Amino acid sequence: MDPERFLDEDIGYGDITTELLVPDADGKAEVTCESDAVIAGLEEAVTIFESRGVRCIPFTMDGERVKKGTVVLAVSGPLRMIITAERTALNFMIRMSGIATETNEIVTRCRRINKNIRISGTRKTTPGFRYFEKKAIVLGGGDPHRYGLDEMILVKDNHIRAAGGMNNVIGLLRTAAPEKKVEIEVENIEDALTAAEYADIVMIDNADPAKAKAIADAVRVIGDIVIEVSGNITKDNAASYADIADVISMGSLTHSVRAVHFSLNIE
Amino acid sequence: MDPERFLDEDIGYGDITTELLVPDADGKAEVTCESDAVIAGLEEAVTIFESRGVRCIPFTMDGERVKKGTVVLAVSGPLRMIITAERTALNFMIRMSGIATETNEIVTRCRRINKNIRISGTRKTTPGFRYFEKKAIVLGGGDPHRYGLDEMILVKDNHIRAAGGMNNVIGLLRTAAPEKKVEIEVENIEDALTAAEYADIVMIDNADPAKAKAIADAVRVIGDIVIEVSGNITKDNAASYADIADVISMGSLTHSVRAVHFSLNIE
Amino acid sequence: MDPERFLDEDIGYGDITTELLVPDADGKAEVTCESDAVIAGLEEAVTIFESRGVRCIPFTMDGERVKKGTVVLAVSGPLRMIITAERTALNFMIRMSGIATETNEIVTRCRRINKNIRISGTRKTTPGFRYFEKKAIVLGGGDPHRYGLDEMILVKDNHIRAAGGMNNVIGLLRTAAPEKKVEIEVENIEDALTAAEYADIVMIDNADPAKAKAIADAVRVIGDIVIEVSGNITKDNAASYADIADVISMGSLTHSVRAVHFSLNIE
Amino acid sequence: MDPERFLDEDIGYGDITTELLVPDADGKAEVTCESDAVIAGLEEAVTIFESRGVRCIPFTMDGERVKKGTVVLAVSGPLRMIITAERTALNFMIRMSGIATETNEIVTRCRRINKNIRISGTRKTTPGFRYFEKKAIVLGGGDPHRYGLDEMILVKDNHIRAAGGMNNVIGLLRTAAPEKKVEIEVENIEDALTAAEYADIVMIDNADPAKAKAIADAVRVIGDIVIEVSGNITKDNAASYADIADVISMGSLTHSVRAVHFSLNIE
Amino acid sequence: MDPERFLDEDIGYGDITTELLVPDADGKAEVTCESDAVIAGLEEAVTIFESRGVRCIPFTMDGERVKKGTVVLAVSGPLRMIITAERTALNFMIRMSGIATETNEIVTRCRRINKNIRISGTRKTTPGFRYFEKKAIVLGGGDPHRYGLDEMILVKDNHIRAAGGMNNVIGLLRTAAPEKKVEIEVENIEDALTAAEYADIVMIDNADPAKAKAIADAVRVIGDIVIEVSGNITKDNAASYADIADVISMGSLTHSVRAVHFSLNIE
Amino acid sequence: MDPERFLDEDIGYGDITTELLVPDADGKAEVTCESDAVIAGLEEAVTIFESRGVRCIPFTMDGERVKKGTVVLAVSGPLRMIITAERTALNFMIRMSGIATETNEIVTRCRRINKNIRISGTRKTTPGFRYFEKKAIVLGGGDPHRYGLDEMILVKDNHIRAAGGMNNVIGLLRTAAPEKKVEIEVENIEDALTAAEYADIVMIDNADPAKAKAIADAVRVIGDIVIEVSGNITKDNAASYADIADVISMGSLTHSVRAVHFSLNIE
Repeated sequence: MDPERFLDEDIGYGDITTELLVPDADGKAEVTCESDAVIAGLEEAVTIFESRGVRCIPFTMDGERVKKGTVVLAVSGPLRMIITAERTALNFMIRMSGIATETNEIVTRCRRINKNIRISGTRKTTPGFRYFEKKAIVLGGGDPHRYGLDEMILVKDNHIRAAGGMNNVIGLLRTAAPEKKVEIEVENIEDALTAAEYADIVMIDNADPAKAKAIADAVRVIGDIVIEVSGNITKDNAASYADIADVISMGSLTHSVRAVHFSLNIE
Repeated sequence: MDPERFLDEDIGYGDITTELLVPDADGKAEVTCESDAVIAGLEEAVTIFESRGVRCIPFTMDGERVKKGTVVLAVSGPLRMIITAERTALNFMIRMSGIATETNEIVTRCRRINKNIRISGTRKTTPGFRYFEKKAIVLGGGDPHRYGLDEMILVKDNHIRAAGGMNNVIGLLRTAAPEKKVEIEVENIEDALTAAEYADIVMIDNADPAKAKAIADAVRVIGDIVIEVSGNITKDNAASYADIADVISMGSLTHSVRAVHFSLNIE
Repeated sequence: MDPERFLDEDIGYGDITTELLVPDADGKAEVTCESDAVIAGLEEAVTIFESRGVRCIPFTMDGERVKKGTVVLAVSGPLRMIITAERTALNFMIRMSGIATETNEIVTRCRRINKNIRISGTRKTTPGFRYFEKKAIVLGGGDPHRYGLDEMILVKDNHIRAAGGMNNVIGLLRTAAPEKKVEIEVENIEDALTAAEYADIVMIDNADPAKAKAIADAVRVIGDIVIEVSGNITKDNAASYADIADVISMGSLTHSVRAVHFSLNIE
Repeated sequence: MDPERFLDEDIGYGDITTELLVPDADGKAEVTCESDAVIAGLEEAVTIFESRGVRCIPFTMDGERVKKGTVVLAVSGPLRMIITAERTALNFMIRMSGIATETNEIVTRCRRINKNIRISGTRKTTPGFRYFEKKAIVLGGGDPHRYGLDEMILVKDNHIRAAGGMNNVIGLLRTAAPEKKVEIEVENIEDALTAAEYADIVMIDNADPAKAKAIADAVRVIGDIVIEVSGNITKDNAASYADIADVISMGSLTHSVRAVHFSLNIE
Repeated sequence: MDPERFLDEDIGYGDITTELLVPDADGKAEVTCESDAVIAGLEEAVTIFESRGVRCIPFTMDGERVKKGTVVLAVSGPLRMIITAERTALNFMIRMSGIATETNEIVTRCRRINKNIRISGTRKTTPGFRYFEKKAIVLGGGDPHRYGLDEMILVKDNHIRAAGGMNNVIGLLRTAAPEKKVEIEVENIEDALTAAEYADIVMIDNADPAKAKAIADAVRVIGDIVIEVSGNITKDNAASYADIADVISMGSLTHSVRAVHFSLNIE
Repeated sequence: MDPERFLDEDIGYGDITTELLVPDADGKAEVTCESDAVIAGLEEAVTIFESRGVRCIPFTMDGERVKKGTVVLAVSGPLRMIITAERTALNFMIRMSGIATETNEIVTRCRRINKNIRISGTRKTTPGFRYFEKKAIVLGGGDPHRYGLDEMILVKDNHIRAAGGMNNVIGLLRTAAPEKKVEIEVENIEDALTAAEYADIVMIDNADPAKAKAIADAVRVIGDIVIEVSGNITKDNAASYADIADVISMGSLTHSVRAVHFSLNIE
């Protein structure tokens, strides 16, 4: 992580307000979490502050759950730098903690039903910020799933259509190098059974819990295949899939999350 | 905008699924909007696709309102590139349209009450993605507000505390160059009246509508000063401020927005 | 500031002379200013030297006026690095001190006539080096004026022509967001009076002092508007405008300045 | 040359004036040279404009001499882009033409005395802009001299001092690879004669014409060695060295040059 | 691929020989392969030439086998650009074709013994050039194996030692996300049998063919696990492993390959 | 050297194996050279390790000859970082030591015959890695020769053909700036004699030792000109040219070298 790239985006040619008004002296400030949350982005905030010569004492760690009102970080050093770097540092924390908190709530709910269930993200992330969004999912107790298209063979409906059907897909998959897992997206039992003959993971897409269960039951007969469900699963309905699947993947963890508020107050 | 930077984040060493399964042939696909929305990110999606040799015919424009199910873009060209670039292109659209749609709803609600009200964002944006988030606000009918710290003198409570009080602030502001607007954040009538003697814009922070109105009324007596309200204003309560302020600025437009869904389907 | 980018420009694959001739030992050197000058670029020179492990003791500060022959900086450390980094470090100082010195002379002359006059730069800077040239103006006692096109609404004659005349311009300006100052360039009294109804700053372009005074007098009748003069103003004629305008902006501060000489001598 | 890097410096988040005032239509403009000059930077200006979709018809070429008032370039295309790119494009032309014009005047003066004399620059250039400044010297009829420290062995007084004297230098030079020319800076006849035994080029530094002539005469007795003079040589005194040296190198060509004015007018 | 980055490495400030000697005119040239080879890097060479406005007509394709003396590419356009870009373009071809040719010879030899054997590379590549070296392996008929550390769980002896033994490793592997294949490096039968209970791929490291066969035979009893051999396998001894393993991975494909020669001749 | 660029190539989103299996604790390891070799790349390996907080104690220096089994580097610090950075660090050492060792063997062989002979590389390097390959040649006792096209005038057969013959070349060379050495490639005595009238270095290309000797003898009659031989010279035949030329340049030093093996073992 290059802190300058992110600071430059906010500072541009200079923090003209702070240069005009804030004395060139040392000072202190505290960062407080304004709601119950799982913390993420604290490491990034520290990196941002330290790159400008501000010393940091974290009072918690990324991945920890804190109560509203908890002071999570104390900073000290050049007062101007504290104020200038504040927004960039906190922008990492508000978004990443939002993701970690949301993920953690879903993990907690679903594990009450199935203690082995895994909650994972998707590739529906903010362009340029994926690494941090995936990291926040992991800090919340989830799995990152694919970071990119080079990581795993994941066959989606457009691939099947472009390849001329599932049978062609299976034929081509046999020529793939053995280093990669193969996952196939299916929407009905027939495709699921065909996919299960070859895939390491079968992903049931856009099915309600009843339909997903029917497909999953059919696949589990065949053997020890990982079953993933995906498609419009939200915090509210995720638990309905918890005893059907091994993995629930959710785009909303990264594309529709609410930020957690933090405030920085100069002493 | 450099499309390669964003494509690289998703593609890495190569889209191994598509290279294995999709024939090296031309094809077509359509991008459909899956809910009522104000479109944003279409220009970016086109840039992404075109950078890989995919031709684009947009059926709408950024800033337009569309109904659920509207085909907003037709693409044609190398089938592999259509599929490989899909996620990156759509990731711009889902987030930017989410911001534009939310902004537009708030603008519409508030303008029913005050046809001159302006809705604006803040600097609470995703690190590295601010330009696109601000642009989406503008496409939704809002104002971007400050892009960065170099753009305007905006005096916040930490500045006032660090400067040793409002009087010191006013003294220092007199030495500033004349090219920049001056905005001062206030939390009570007394500070507001002091600020109004000097500032171009007075920003009332964290006040409920009644308190905000009292401060605004007092300031307007002094003269023709722009009044902005900010602090925990959401879609639900924004309209309550519409006849009090000239500008309502809202961090939630960028830090807590829900994505709009789009799908791409190969013909 | 990334010192490597600038050092790379000068060093390329290596300082072959120094590697061949200079022993791998520590040493000392002094940097002397070869004329009366206002110092600028010293901070950059220190950054350049320190990035190569050379320790620096500055004997003055950027913005200070020194006499010819003053030693402004002592450096010590690896002799090879002192010699290899010399030219890059001094290139910042010679150009930036040239700008600061020229600016300061004009500020001094003009303030004898109008103690509130402000001298500012323009956007006529060396491509890629604007930040440093604007900084040098500030160190010389001037104002930077716009860093770029995103900073302020500044209406020039080409805008007025392209918009179809001053009236169209005024109409469009009413829709602009309130966060930006508006400056309008004028060449005659009629336009100046129209502009003054709307603008925060009226800029009188390419007028001799007599004409500028006539326009300024007319504008000041209307109200408390900042008046700027610009266009072929040089060190020689700037003082003639000092009691007419609030701001004198001069491209020559950055595009036609003479360098100040510095020498580095190894002990 | 990456035009975006330079345009970004000027445009930032957007040309807010032009976006507000200039219609989204095509237009034309002409670029006029405002004084007698040797043109340079025209190729760069064209690259800048074309990168934004503006078509260019140059009416002259870099390196050509034009009269005041000559239209050197016609541009057509999106009016907004013409206006937005204007300053960046012209900033290349004003500085580079300034250098080319100054160089050319000195070359012309000196060649009247010695038709084989070569005028060259030094490494005293604007950080980050050296390539363009050296190119402008060449367009004015001069030589670029060293682009950087990796290009040639050029022994200066600090090298000699650090190496422990001229004899040590000569010993070490014998071990150098044969691919590089060797130039040695001297300040007196004794050193010049020692240097001439080994160097390809002897550079006489900081000598007035009489002293320079004495040294040069002594060196020429030894053999066919290139003689360069340098150090505080300006347009005014350069001709005095023209029949003494083979090369006159001048830092002022890049560090103290006056810009040539150009204007862009929308039709 | 950004051709400028590679061209800059070779061209620097300019191809001074070509600018001096070669007329500014169009011309043609042919690129000839100087030995029997499998071609790779042709696509990169074309990208390099085209980035400088040189038109390319390839007479073969990457991955094709050609005889010594085959003309593989005809280029036409600006003569200077053909000559300036030659070395950079050919440097891709000589190294990548070397890798493809070597890989192909080994694949051919080994497939005579086991038609399903796969030959793959390792991460022992030239820093900064891995993508192209892996691509060349694929063009030669091999597999790329891991592009990087984020792609697959590959447990090596240092991991086992650091984790405190194979049993600890197995315990930790059970908590890994299901999207990644697991490969474990073993050196004896006991470890191989433990690994085979959990891993998708067992890699037998540094074993001679007899020992490798013993381990492989033991593992195959357990089930359908991919067996890889690695460690000091060269072109000469690779075939001895062909009927033992499913995958033979070889660092020498990228770290110790001989280049294929190509020449470019101007017509 | 920016270690992050090279580490990123190998690590991507994270070393998932090490994060899963290796405890977050400190540890130690040693790097052993697995054959007799001249060491190069040790400085780069140290830079790579240190950038991740791993302390390094080198037991030898770049350019030193070591025996098989020598421990060349001890590292200590975060165990995870040692393992994660291992491959990138060692990839510099294996390739650079391969080049240094090969160069050194050739230098040693040839200096037995001619103690002043110089062995140099060419521009046939791995794209993006030239600096390190040239540095390894120097560490092995060789010369780097041209780093790029801007460094020296080196006239090859394509230049001569494009210029219309050797006489045209000579005419144009007379107008070149005096700061650069001139080298001309020749294939017969006639051209060699013409070239020798003007060039600083004559390069005899693609000649067997007998022919090379005939050309060299003819050239040496003319005067003190450096003679270089090049073209398909390998370790095996280099010594045959040692008493003919001043410089032997060999592409094989960089394009066809065998790596030296190093292993890293955790204690």
